Amino acid sequence: MSIVPAPSAVVAAEGHLIDSQLMTAIFDTVIERGGAFEVLHFEIGRTNTEFSHVTMKVSAPSEPALAALLETLIPLGCHVAAEQDALVRAADRDRCAPDDFYSTTNQRTEVRVDGRWVAVERQRMDAAIVVESDRARCRKLRDLQAGDRVVCGLTGIRVTPEFRDRARAGFTFMTNDVSSERRVGASVARIARMMRDTKAAGGRIAFVAGPVVVHTGGAAYFSRLIRAGYVDVLLAGNALAVHDAELALFGTSLGVDLEAGAPVSGGHRHHMRAINIINRAGGIGPAVAAGVLHSGVMVECVRAGVDYVLAGSVRDDGPIVDTVTDIIAAQDRYAAALDGVGMTIVLSTMLHGIGVGNMLAAWVPVVCVDINPAVVTKLADRGSSQTIGVVTDVGLFLHQLAGQLVPG
Amino acid sequence: MSIVPAPSAVVAAEGHLIDSQLMTAIFDTVIERGGAFEVLHFEIGRTNTEFSHVTMKVSAPSEPALAALLETLIPLGCHVAAEQDALVRAADRDRCAPDDFYSTTNQRTEVRVDGRWVAVERQRMDAAIVVESDRARCRKLRDLQAGDRVVCGLTGIRVTPEFRDRARAGFTFMTNDVSSERRVGASVARIARMMRDTKAAGGRIAFVAGPVVVHTGGAAYFSRLIRAGYVDVLLAGNALAVHDAELALFGTSLGVDLEAGAPVSGGHRHHMRAINIINRAGGIGPAVAAGVLHSGVMVECVRAGVDYVLAGSVRDDGPIVDTVTDIIAAQDRYAAALDGVGMTIVLSTMLHGIGVGNMLAAWVPVVCVDINPAVVTKLADRGSSQTIGVVTDVGLFLHQLAGQLVPG
Amino acid sequence: MSIVPAPSAVVAAEGHLIDSQLMTAIFDTVIERGGAFEVLHFEIGRTNTEFSHVTMKVSAPSEPALAALLETLIPLGCHVAAEQDALVRAADRDRCAPDDFYSTTNQRTEVRVDGRWVAVERQRMDAAIVVESDRARCRKLRDLQAGDRVVCGLTGIRVTPEFRDRARAGFTFMTNDVSSERRVGASVARIARMMRDTKAAGGRIAFVAGPVVVHTGGAAYFSRLIRAGYVDVLLAGNALAVHDAELALFGTSLGVDLEAGAPVSGGHRHHMRAINIINRAGGIGPAVAAGVLHSGVMVECVRAGVDYVLAGSVRDDGPIVDTVTDIIAAQDRYAAALDGVGMTIVLSTMLHGIGVGNMLAAWVPVVCVDINPAVVTKLADRGSSQTIGVVTDVGLFLHQLAGQLVPG
Amino acid sequence: MSIVPAPSAVVAAEGHLIDSQLMTAIFDTVIERGGAFEVLHFEIGRTNTEFSHVTMKVSAPSEPALAALLETLIPLGCHVAAEQDALVRAADRDRCAPDDFYSTTNQRTEVRVDGRWVAVERQRMDAAIVVESDRARCRKLRDLQAGDRVVCGLTGIRVTPEFRDRARAGFTFMTNDVSSERRVGASVARIARMMRDTKAAGGRIAFVAGPVVVHTGGAAYFSRLIRAGYVDVLLAGNALAVHDAELALFGTSLGVDLEAGAPVSGGHRHHMRAINIINRAGGIGPAVAAGVLHSGVMVECVRAGVDYVLAGSVRDDGPIVDTVTDIIAAQDRYAAALDGVGMTIVLSTMLHGIGVGNMLAAWVPVVCVDINPAVVTKLADRGSSQTIGVVTDVGLFLHQLAGQLVPG
Repeated sequence: MSIVPAPSAVVAAEGHLIDSQLMTAIFDTVIERGGAFEVLHFEIGRTNTEFSHVTMKVSAPSEPALAALLETLIPLGCHVAAEQDALVRAADRDRCAPDDFYSTTNQRTEVRVDGRWVAVERQRMDAAIVVESDRARCRKLRDLQAGDRVVCGLTGIRVTPEFRDRARAGFTFMTNDVSSERRVGASVARIARMMRDTKAAGGRIAFVAGPVVVHTGGAAYFSRLIRAGYVDVLLAGNALAVHDAELALFGTSLGVDLEAGAPVSGGHRHHMRAINIINRAGGIGPAVAAGVLHSGVMVECVRAGVDYVLAGSVRDDGPIVDTVTDIIAAQDRYAAALDGVGMTIVLSTMLHGIGVGNMLAAWVPVVCVDINPAVVTKLADRGSSQTIGVVTDVGLFLHQLAGQLVPG
Repeated sequence: MSIVPAPSAVVAAEGHLIDSQLMTAIFDTVIERGGAFEVLHFEIGRTNTEFSHVTMKVSAPSEPALAALLETLIPLGCHVAAEQDALVRAADRDRCAPDDFYSTTNQRTEVRVDGRWVAVERQRMDAAIVVESDRARCRKLRDLQAGDRVVCGLTGIRVTPEFRDRARAGFTFMTNDVSSERRVGASVARIARMMRDTKAAGGRIAFVAGPVVVHTGGAAYFSRLIRAGYVDVLLAGNALAVHDAELALFGTSLGVDLEAGAPVSGGHRHHMRAINIINRAGGIGPAVAAGVLHSGVMVECVRAGVDYVLAGSVRDDGPIVDTVTDIIAAQDRYAAALDGVGMTIVLSTMLHGIGVGNMLAAWVPVVCVDINPAVVTKLADRGSSQTIGVVTDVGLFLHQLAGQLVPG
Repeated sequence: MSIVPAPSAVVAAEGHLIDSQLMTAIFDTVIERGGAFEVLHFEIGRTNTEFSHVTMKVSAPSEPALAALLETLIPLGCHVAAEQDALVRAADRDRCAPDDFYSTTNQRTEVRVDGRWVAVERQRMDAAIVVESDRARCRKLRDLQAGDRVVCGLTGIRVTPEFRDRARAGFTFMTNDVSSERRVGASVARIARMMRDTKAAGGRIAFVAGPVVVHTGGAAYFSRLIRAGYVDVLLAGNALAVHDAELALFGTSLGVDLEAGAPVSGGHRHHMRAINIINRAGGIGPAVAAGVLHSGVMVECVRAGVDYVLAGSVRDDGPIVDTVTDIIAAQDRYAAALDGVGMTIVLSTMLHGIGVGNMLAAWVPVVCVDINPAVVTKLADRGSSQTIGVVTDVGLFLHQLAGQLVPG
Repeated sequence: MSIVPAPSAVVAAEGHLIDSQLMTAIFDTVIERGGAFEVLHFEIGRTNTEFSHVTMKVSAPSEPALAALLETLIPLGCHVAAEQDALVRAADRDRCAPDDFYSTTNQRTEVRVDGRWVAVERQRMDAAIVVESDRARCRKLRDLQAGDRVVCGLTGIRVTPEFRDRARAGFTFMTNDVSSERRVGASVARIARMMRDTKAAGGRIAFVAGPVVVHTGGAAYFSRLIRAGYVDVLLAGNALAVHDAELALFGTSLGVDLEAGAPVSGGHRHHMRAINIINRAGGIGPAVAAGVLHSGVMVECVRAGVDYVLAGSVRDDGPIVDTVTDIIAAQDRYAAALDGVGMTIVLSTMLHGIGVGNMLAAWVPVVCVDINPAVVTKLADRGSSQTIGVVTDVGLFLHQLAGQLVPG
């Protein structure tokens, strides 16, 4: 039996390797895939602010296994120590990538083109990277065109995972710990501060909201936030607008009288009437202009110039004519509205929340408020690791948030 | 083949048979057990306030099946039309009933003794009925003594199921409909009104509370309710008192700083320190007297003279010396404290909530607040059909309730 | 002060009024709306099979209140005793109904046209009724065209609520009682029997399935059901097909190795690779034809000629080219596939389950399987009262169901 | 302004510091408490099997802050580099510790006595450490006696956190990831293997079981595991035994016929009858001996000589005479039964599961099976970090587990 040395490569990484648990993840990954590692050099950051540096030799049982292993180490911040340009291949047909295309994460990514590291633009997960002259940007598979120069393989790709800042430890604590047994007040105070900071820095705030905002009596408080300028973008579905209009027109939400808390007989038909009224007017904008709609979240959005997009879904009643019924168009409209937002708050909608999570770069903080801990966990699971979960009643949450930001 | 008529009996019932769905339940029950019915006489209440009356012949395939069927119809308000005294048999040994003892529901019950209908006292579910001269009362199996005269069989027992008052329809609506997608404000207003009405009528209010009251920041609001006299009885476990003391002594709850919302390192040991401090003082009362404990729910209880009972459980740390560690003694103390209460509010504790639900008569309204809809459903399932469920954050609920009852 | 008699009307209803709790609902409705009733005539069905009949005078404080009340009583089976034709009005513009259009429930409905009662076709909820010569059918608001003759107002409309058959009491029991604390075996046996009966009667069975079917290892058992002919229609989203293909191509589901139960490093990118591969082939059909896809749920569907529709949603990755991205087109495709199905089974998908529930008539039984009791409750809440809920692990449910229907 | 150096101390740690995320935790802890660190020496394990070593200087704003910080670092494996004996102080009264007593975690702990490191016996969390001549052991506060020599302060205490073995990565993966969207089969296979390994190594297996085992039809499969010798210890509450007996005597569980899946009218009283029958016989053992109880989980336990303990709770009906009604006695009996078990499996009981979790050393693996992900998360949260969560239907889980371990 001859002894053939296992295929190996030397990789390097630097940053807050300990604090961000990247070292742990790197070691785990190598072992889980049946590989081995040898640390060649490790220099630890001696204080809280210093970077650590590691160079290690990783080996795997076969060349394909090594390639697969290296592919996995890239999102953890490792790059092949010997620098090479990224491999770029032309797409041979529209809407398809070469088989070995690099599928992005939502972390900051650079690719090496002509010997220079180029930051990837429009970072998002599950995209391909297209190189055009000296720029690189994320592009969804369905937007690829034949001839697009797509980054493939493993070399010349460098990912910088988001640093888990210890100064934000209170926050990051919550990201790992979804519990209904917490005092919501402390979270609200922190979120209010983040919102003020975001606005002070000139950033925009996007809300993603389900109809539960209306059912739980949160519409009045949400309206206050809109009027005060804290809502730049509103991404929702048809149901939010319909139930909001139902409340404005009939005082009910899904047939329940919100003041009395009791169902109004026949009220289940109110939402169909509301749809008919809005569509007869020609949509939300015309309905507001014509005075058909006087109050509610959507009215406030129209008045405040909020950039709102309603995305359709297969369970929609109606829908009202404002709803974007083609989901590809809806995704594109969502993504455009999200471009450059500094913060996103998801209120009780798993469907739209996941949709938005898929579009955001890792460094955009996402607050997810839901009474169901499983929804918060699921959003956090999908790689949107910057998600801050608050398990509570959405109506009461908005009451508290408006109380902090827009007292009176 | 000879035709033998199926065994049958004539039963009668009266009351709001339609509104309370009793007719439906009676019909369903007969059919489900393989029986048949023939309505001999039915007189419908012509208006909302009139009673209905029904006399029907029910038959079953065999005599035992008929007996089982009749047994099942009793809690639905049926009584055997031909009146007989209740069958009473002596218990042959302590803590055990005759095999065919009548096991109670929590509904109003009468038994016929010496030709007179006698109201059963201390109504509760899962008890035996003991007759002593001209009185009848519920007694738990474990409290039976040899010689006790126990009601057995089926005759001479009359149950009057609680009337589902249409005027309370808004409330009863909620009993059947546990949902987190509701505006909590409307429920809080109604519960506040019930509490005021109960106090105005001279009734006492019992709270059953889990430690989540403390974790979610509700302790300050709950304290306000105590000071304002809205808490006559507090039934809880060791954990409520321990985490309340932890908050008072260290500012943390399960190691989480309630102001900052972040975990305090080493904080997980605070609750053990709190236990040690209270026990060293000799319990809650002495700790308050000695000035060791200055603030918190338990301090307010001591000052306001609230009748509190802490029941032990197998997961207790410590426990503090005030905790009643024998669960039979704890149940007896709970039951004594609940004697005559006009209203009960359960805050985030399935264990103690079910324990209390087992002790209450059907006409004592129970409000159950929990962020987990399954807990509310489970409490309502156990025959405590008067349960009003509110699915929301307990801390925010108490904030709103105190705001309504004790503004400022 | 003159005394003006309250506006009143005489309504009638017949059927299993007690068993179906319709009498209770009628009484409750009148009182909740501030009205009053007087029973003029009531004849109770004396046995389990006889109908009951009621005639009652209902009054309300004002004419509009009376109209609203009558509108509410219609879905409960009441009809105005004095028979009149339905009021029919022409739609004045496309996609909109007259303001007072009658919005349907999913119950059997008849309208009176030219003195004759006509059964409404394509019964579904939240639609308008359009009359064409001597026929009447449900039409969605968005499908109305100017000139369509739309049923409005309250007269000449008769609804026959589904009879809650006592013989199915075991089943209906479950519809009201969603609990995870049940033996699933008993439910599976009953569902298997329903499926066999449906097929024996020449009926078609529709499945509505989420990707959890794949994640929980149910794909193999579901495939067995397809091969055995128990799946006529499959309604799902893009994700089911993508994760099914991921499993077939890479052995993972959302990056988790289904055999080992552990995540495969880099596996999170497998689903993007799967999308690219299918789209490169031109879709599922071509991918199966070309041998690119060998196994999995979708392959079985293609081979067995299952009528499948994939509806898009805003959270889709890709999507694969088979996905219907316009949700109006997707709803229409769903509705067409559901035309005439005898039974529907929803597996772990709230989104598609609600979408389908909106389309079905009340007499099509729906089985809803989910590990989250809130999902089952929510589906049942939306008026699809025939929903049978099973709270369990979907993978294990399919394992048991296939074991019963396709042993071996 | 004079510059006073911040109080500081030098601490050391060794082990799999990176893989176990201990370095991360240590750094986080220092910063969160407002301290600072300087790494004096760090030697990384170059391969998967080598230990790492660190020596660091930690400083804090004040002496008390430094003491609090050091206290917090001890459970993370740090020990003060300058070795000193542990501080030992006598308890001044029964059931109380000195104020600064060291409250244990469930990790392996050594204390330095007379210059020698002594392993602490009966390791569990939330206890004091008592030194007797050359031995040290955990003792609950309530068991302390005046004069007991209790470890206090911070010096001379060394904790070795459980190593997260990468070879068990598949398992540990699951500990962090509680999801219902997993294939249960893979988990069952792994748990079956652990059970076989535990038995092969001469270890005992403890089950902690709630009544849901009976409700979900798992009793038959659990009985098979008992007969095959896989259950050495059974810890449960009164309800398990009662519902088990109800099933054996009446074929129902909480009044639901387990074969038919439908409720049996009058069945809600069966559990009271079962209690009466067992207590009349004198308890479970006598009931089995007398032939009153023929089948069920408890019968199998009696026959197989399983060490079972039933602990009371405030919601108990009855209870049966076997139930230990004093919770201190129950905890002591639980702890005695758990002494030396090699593995623990918790089936659908948060109450008893948490109770048991509090008693176990960190190195005893705990499997927690529940259909509610929040229960699994909660058990894992309480410091029982070795918890393996499986979110599924308990009845089907036992079906699969018995199928693997006791086929046929």
